[in-house]
Amino acid sequence: MALPEAAQQSTTAATPDDLAAQFRETRALTESLLEPLSEADATIQSMEDASPAKWHAAHTTWFWETFLLRDHVADYQLYDERWPFLFNSYYEAEGDRILRGKRGLISRPTVAQVLDWRHAVNDAMDALLDDPAHTELIALGIAHEQQHIELLLTDIKHAFSKNPLGPAMWEHAENRSPSQGTGWTEHPGGIAMIGHQGNDFAFDNEGPAHRVLLEPFALSKSLVTNGEWADFISDGGYEDHRLWLSDAWAWLSRCNITAPLYWREDEHFTHTGWQKRDPDAPVAHISYYEADAFATWAGKRLPTEFEWEAIARGSDASGGNQLDNAAPPSPRGTPSLFGDVWQFTRSGYLPYPRFQPAEGAVGEYNGKFMAGQWVLKGASCATVRGHSRATYRNFFYPQQRWQFTGLRLAKDL
Amino acid sequence: MALPEAAQQSTTAATPDDLAAQFRETRALTESLLEPLSEADATIQSMEDASPAKWHAAHTTWFWETFLLRDHVADYQLYDERWPFLFNSYYEAEGDRILRGKRGLISRPTVAQVLDWRHAVNDAMDALLDDPAHTELIALGIAHEQQHIELLLTDIKHAFSKNPLGPAMWEHAENRSPSQGTGWTEHPGGIAMIGHQGNDFAFDNEGPAHRVLLEPFALSKSLVTNGEWADFISDGGYEDHRLWLSDAWAWLSRCNITAPLYWREDEHFTHTGWQKRDPDAPVAHISYYEADAFATWAGKRLPTEFEWEAIARGSDASGGNQLDNAAPPSPRGTPSLFGDVWQFTRSGYLPYPRFQPAEGAVGEYNGKFMAGQWVLKGASCATVRGHSRATYRNFFYPQQRWQFTGLRLAKDL
Amino acid sequence: MALPEAAQQSTTAATPDDLAAQFRETRALTESLLEPLSEADATIQSMEDASPAKWHAAHTTWFWETFLLRDHVADYQLYDERWPFLFNSYYEAEGDRILRGKRGLISRPTVAQVLDWRHAVNDAMDALLDDPAHTELIALGIAHEQQHIELLLTDIKHAFSKNPLGPAMWEHAENRSPSQGTGWTEHPGGIAMIGHQGNDFAFDNEGPAHRVLLEPFALSKSLVTNGEWADFISDGGYEDHRLWLSDAWAWLSRCNITAPLYWREDEHFTHTGWQKRDPDAPVAHISYYEADAFATWAGKRLPTEFEWEAIARGSDASGGNQLDNAAPPSPRGTPSLFGDVWQFTRSGYLPYPRFQPAEGAVGEYNGKFMAGQWVLKGASCATVRGHSRATYRNFFYPQQRWQFTGLRLAKDL
Amino acid sequence: MALPEAAQQSTTAATPDDLAAQFRETRALTESLLEPLSEADATIQSMEDASPAKWHAAHTTWFWETFLLRDHVADYQLYDERWPFLFNSYYEAEGDRILRGKRGLISRPTVAQVLDWRHAVNDAMDALLDDPAHTELIALGIAHEQQHIELLLTDIKHAFSKNPLGPAMWEHAENRSPSQGTGWTEHPGGIAMIGHQGNDFAFDNEGPAHRVLLEPFALSKSLVTNGEWADFISDGGYEDHRLWLSDAWAWLSRCNITAPLYWREDEHFTHTGWQKRDPDAPVAHISYYEADAFATWAGKRLPTEFEWEAIARGSDASGGNQLDNAAPPSPRGTPSLFGDVWQFTRSGYLPYPRFQPAEGAVGEYNGKFMAGQWVLKGASCATVRGHSRATYRNFFYPQQRWQFTGLRLAKDL
Repeated sequence: MALPEAAQQSTTAATPDDLAAQFRETRALTESLLEPLSEADATIQSMEDASPAKWHAAHTTWFWETFLLRDHVADYQLYDERWPFLFNSYYEAEGDRILRGKRGLISRPTVAQVLDWRHAVNDAMDALLDDPAHTELIALGIAHEQQHIELLLTDIKHAFSKNPLGPAMWEHAENRSPSQGTGWTEHPGGIAMIGHQGNDFAFDNEGPAHRVLLEPFALSKSLVTNGEWADFISDGGYEDHRLWLSDAWAWLSRCNITAPLYWREDEHFTHTGWQKRDPDAPVAHISYYEADAFATWAGKRLPTEFEWEAIARGSDASGGNQLDNAAPPSPRGTPSLFGDVWQFTRSGYLPYPRFQPAEGAVGEYNGKFMAGQWVLKGASCATVRGHSRATYRNFFYPQQRWQFTGLRLAKDL
Repeated sequence: MALPEAAQQSTTAATPDDLAAQFRETRALTESLLEPLSEADATIQSMEDASPAKWHAAHTTWFWETFLLRDHVADYQLYDERWPFLFNSYYEAEGDRILRGKRGLISRPTVAQVLDWRHAVNDAMDALLDDPAHTELIALGIAHEQQHIELLLTDIKHAFSKNPLGPAMWEHAENRSPSQGTGWTEHPGGIAMIGHQGNDFAFDNEGPAHRVLLEPFALSKSLVTNGEWADFISDGGYEDHRLWLSDAWAWLSRCNITAPLYWREDEHFTHTGWQKRDPDAPVAHISYYEADAFATWAGKRLPTEFEWEAIARGSDASGGNQLDNAAPPSPRGTPSLFGDVWQFTRSGYLPYPRFQPAEGAVGEYNGKFMAGQWVLKGASCATVRGHSRATYRNFFYPQQRWQFTGLRLAKDL
Repeated sequence: MALPEAAQQSTTAATPDDLAAQFRETRALTESLLEPLSEADATIQSMEDASPAKWHAAHTTWFWETFLLRDHVADYQLYDERWPFLFNSYYEAEGDRILRGKRGLISRPTVAQVLDWRHAVNDAMDALLDDPAHTELIALGIAHEQQHIELLLTDIKHAFSKNPLGPAMWEHAENRSPSQGTGWTEHPGGIAMIGHQGNDFAFDNEGPAHRVLLEPFALSKSLVTNGEWADFISDGGYEDHRLWLSDAWAWLSRCNITAPLYWREDEHFTHTGWQKRDPDAPVAHISYYEADAFATWAGKRLPTEFEWEAIARGSDASGGNQLDNAAPPSPRGTPSLFGDVWQFTRSGYLPYPRFQPAEGAVGEYNGKFMAGQWVLKGASCATVRGHSRATYRNFFYPQQRWQFTGLRLAKDL
Repeated sequence: MALPEAAQQSTTAATPDDLAAQFRETRALTESLLEPLSEADATIQSMEDASPAKWHAAHTTWFWETFLLRDHVADYQLYDERWPFLFNSYYEAEGDRILRGKRGLISRPTVAQVLDWRHAVNDAMDALLDDPAHTELIALGIAHEQQHIELLLTDIKHAFSKNPLGPAMWEHAENRSPSQGTGWTEHPGGIAMIGHQGNDFAFDNEGPAHRVLLEPFALSKSLVTNGEWADFISDGGYEDHRLWLSDAWAWLSRCNITAPLYWREDEHFTHTGWQKRDPDAPVAHISYYEADAFATWAGKRLPTEFEWEAIARGSDASGGNQLDNAAPPSPRGTPSLFGDVWQFTRSGYLPYPRFQPAEGAVGEYNGKFMAGQWVLKGASCATVRGHSRATYRNFFYPQQRWQFTGLRLAKDL
């Protein structure tokens, strides 16, 4: 059976000019996020899952230096031979590296030294940005840095939340919640085309495009809100074992989980410190385990990644509440399928049929994580606008909560 | 869209007479497995995943007493009010229970006391075995006890393997390996019917029956053998990070994994003690992580559970090397799709569309485990013959190895 | 300064005949303690600190076979070459051994096989018992087996306490509490002679005898009782950080300690199952941390080992409530300084001046444990009568509680 | 028996003027140590035993604010009500506090804010410095801050050692090693006076003064050197279980200890980065376990704290290689008994006869740590000159190595 026609059809991809502009914007955005942070803020690491802000700024630079400059610029000299050991994340093919949990001990190089490195690498990149031979790798590098922008934001939020003083990264400004849609979007089922097609950039894990058979279903037009989550809690949701998966119940009991991450009384922790929760805003910072239990409690279920994608195909992935610049990300609720929070699906993060990881070290980007994680769709308020698309597959472990994660219910028809 | 016709079609189910016979055979088989064991053998627990043999004999009895006798016999008095605390496994709805890792401390009640309990429960069950109202629950109880027969066998094997004396449960008898098939079974792809249909007993997780779209593929006619696995090792399979999932590489590094469980030099541990390995016999006691790495090394992949089922549908699930009586289970390799070892698929253990767990405590049987585990298909040399079927979904965590687990490769066409 | 004269003076030591009789009595006592236990009871291990009863029976036999028979009988053949790996406790010089926490997995050899070994070793020992050349080593072996008799009793008590059924090793028989002394024994201070002198058997850690300067003090004539401990609890003793050492408070908080081990409501766990506590009986199963906190609460302190010994010197070490035969040990309270419970001192277990461990593997017996432990004096209801003496230095870690441990207060004058 | 006369005799204590000067010097010294550190350097925490440099600067300020200003200045307002939670170390009586291992997450308040606090507290202290009513508490506060100066130095050294770049706090300057003494100082034994007497400041744990009976012994005139330690290593010292205490051997095996902390090949890590080791300089950064094993290997032993003090009494405690100002501390070896490295004794850190902790929260300073630690005597190259004295009792756990710890051998005569 050949790949369906659509998969071979080419869409207009980014031109080198677009790419160069996007490169510069993305690089600048990373740096603008360091501005509200002190040297110490940028250095600390609050848990193994999270990395220091400075580390993100350096690691993304390591990525450009390693996979673009070192590999594709003749006689390129590394800025500092000792830094790859510090700033490689998980690329086994690129050699040993500092233990993940020890990234917060690296008080040197300083932020200023890392910024100097960033600028030197930016300058060196000029030689490659125009070259169509590197389009794909540059698009990957931009997408990579955009992902780290989101991580930088969620990681520093986590670090600040651990400080009893509850520091704010930005001043608070009141945000009226835009209203979400209501009701359900129905889908008749049948064969749906899934996965990325065309020449635009996409990660290897979004393909190959293939067909999937769906049963009739409906997807909620709104994300679950803080108010609905408060009802779940009042109704004893965290105490009723029947709502929870076995692993979830063990996790909840061991970790004393009784509410989403960052909740206390009627407040939650944000990039502007502790703030009153808006009951109409989408709930965020929940685990897969909690999303699944809520859906069970609601008599509904989570959608599969295929159902979500079938509905999203064709809708505008750049809409909704996403990250435009260095401003406090905060879920508010818009009618868009994208934005506010990443949405859990009930799909395990597994390879699509005929999936092959990319060759070389960048092949470690996605494929090797296809075990034990769950697919999330959409985009969050901390996702760089333009970064996501209907075929995008984000993935996290079922107990992780420090991302802007939420849920949209589905039901059978 | 209604469920497909086939799903509503009734097949001839077991009669009460068949069930009563099966009940007695199964109960007798459990007890025959205690015979080669001393009181101490039957009491020890070698790890949290495994349970004492005596505990299996008692827990299966608790299951009958709780869900059949207590719930369906008027005025039934529990044999001992204190024992449910000891022998409930994981049914939250049935109350508190002893910590899983502490089952090996229960030197009392003795084996003899547990056997008396078994016989009393068997006698009391006579009143229910003929009653068609309980057919379904009795079939579940039999399937449940059959599962524990397999666990009893793999758990005691694990416990004995921890004893430096390498005790044998049975005397060794030479087994000529029957030959496996060769080559590949091809499948053209298209829409396949998946899941259990008809009135025969099946677990709730095998349904609802539904349609799945398959790409063209082929499934190997043979299981991977000890000899092939030795080649994988010689070729540096356990040292090449590129073959391994990220979680797998972390596991392998942390636990110093360099071969299947129970291997040492050219021997492996069996129910008859340490024995020379047969290179032509199917490899066993591997994790999902290892199965996946081996498939990658071989340039192939694991099948999905749907592919496996599409090929298996219609073949004889009672064939091959399975457990007939209290004799040492040992993989040998037969042409059957079933038997020898449970076969890893690349499918996460997740609910089928429209899946609903059964009502009440027995609803905890399967559904709550749908997170973090992988589906295995077929049957092993320790599976009671008749227990499995094409739609059967066994499931384990990706690092677990103490079951008779192996693999059969697949490839795209 | 030469060693004081007394230390060089010889006292009449045991004759070979006495020793042979003591050997046989001790060996017989060990076996009589296995009688009330099932094969499973004798095999289980409830924590790393405790060992299975069968293991004690085997380890003591290994000691005789290794240090007497193997080393001193020409051409002696080990009963089983594989067993030293199983039954060596901690003698590094004697090679590798099974992990301490895995002793409970050794269902084979059986109790019967271990008893056969015991009898074979007893028979072989006949050749050595008369030989004065081995007197010292035989006395050590007897003392060693007596120590394991006490451990066997406290270990099986701990194992049974973990069984929700609360099994009893023996039937309960009411014990009237003998009355303890009242008031204080005063000591004027000055130079006291400390440590073992003479030719009678003593452990290497009891010497060399040396002089110590004492301040005036008094030692209570009674052990602290269950009733007094209940007052400590009622008074909030376990909740007042000011009473506790820093390590103690961390331990108590981490482990949720609110009472002595084995207490529940007005009962405690004994070798005869759960029994009502006698308020006049000495409290048992407390840690050093608890003993120290109680003493602080009482406005008193623990004695040093030197103070205790100075008072005890000359008193009858065979008196009080000690173990005479296979009967349930239980603290009752007698006027003797010895018996009922081992008494915590505030002395760290450290070497006496000029201490040298014995040569060879038996040198590992005591010396290498001189770090992090505390000295206890006296004897307990589970100590074989005749085993202890005024110079005896028992030692345990400050959090350990499964021995019959209690306290006798001291105060400054 | 009354306390000896000498203990009641008054020596001239510090005048308020001396104290005020010492207060200002000490406060200034702390701040001068922050100067070479970046905001990030001052914030990171490399292990639970160590604290951030900023934390030391803040905690010492908390101590003055809490025990002097809050308790003794009418209507004193705390600088920030929220900071005691951050900067209380272990005073239970002063309420809850941030978990010890989380001190490195406190990027706010900033170093500048902490310095502002320091200056405000310094100013407020002016009102109390002249008042003789507070002499004792002020002396305690100074001693306390001096201890934290030493900890600040050893903690930042540890943190920098974890950075693969091996940052230097100061520039390296060659240090010729002064020569140590040779041979042994003999002591005839007999009754020695131990513990602090007079009105000078001393910690509560240095008293009461009391008499101790010593056997004849000798104390080495030199500290063990790097060169001697290298011989110990070459001779297989870390591989011979016979040299090690049982807990030590378990620690060494679990942690893969094969050399002092900070050693690699012929270099060691210092405040000036990785430097070649001087074989004639005193060995540093060893644990009690290692010190004890070395002494056993050398056929000698560690002194008791009483022996060491008996020799040191009357010698100049301000001599040797100690900390005078903000310069890199580094052991070099001088003829003084004090300086270079703290010297392990074989004495457990336990209360002296009739010891009573001080009243109130400062009573938690020393007494509650009297369990599981060992006494060290002397002073190190990082100890503020004038801080120590012959009666000083430093104490650490037997596995801790990040202080400048070494050893001086003793032997029996």
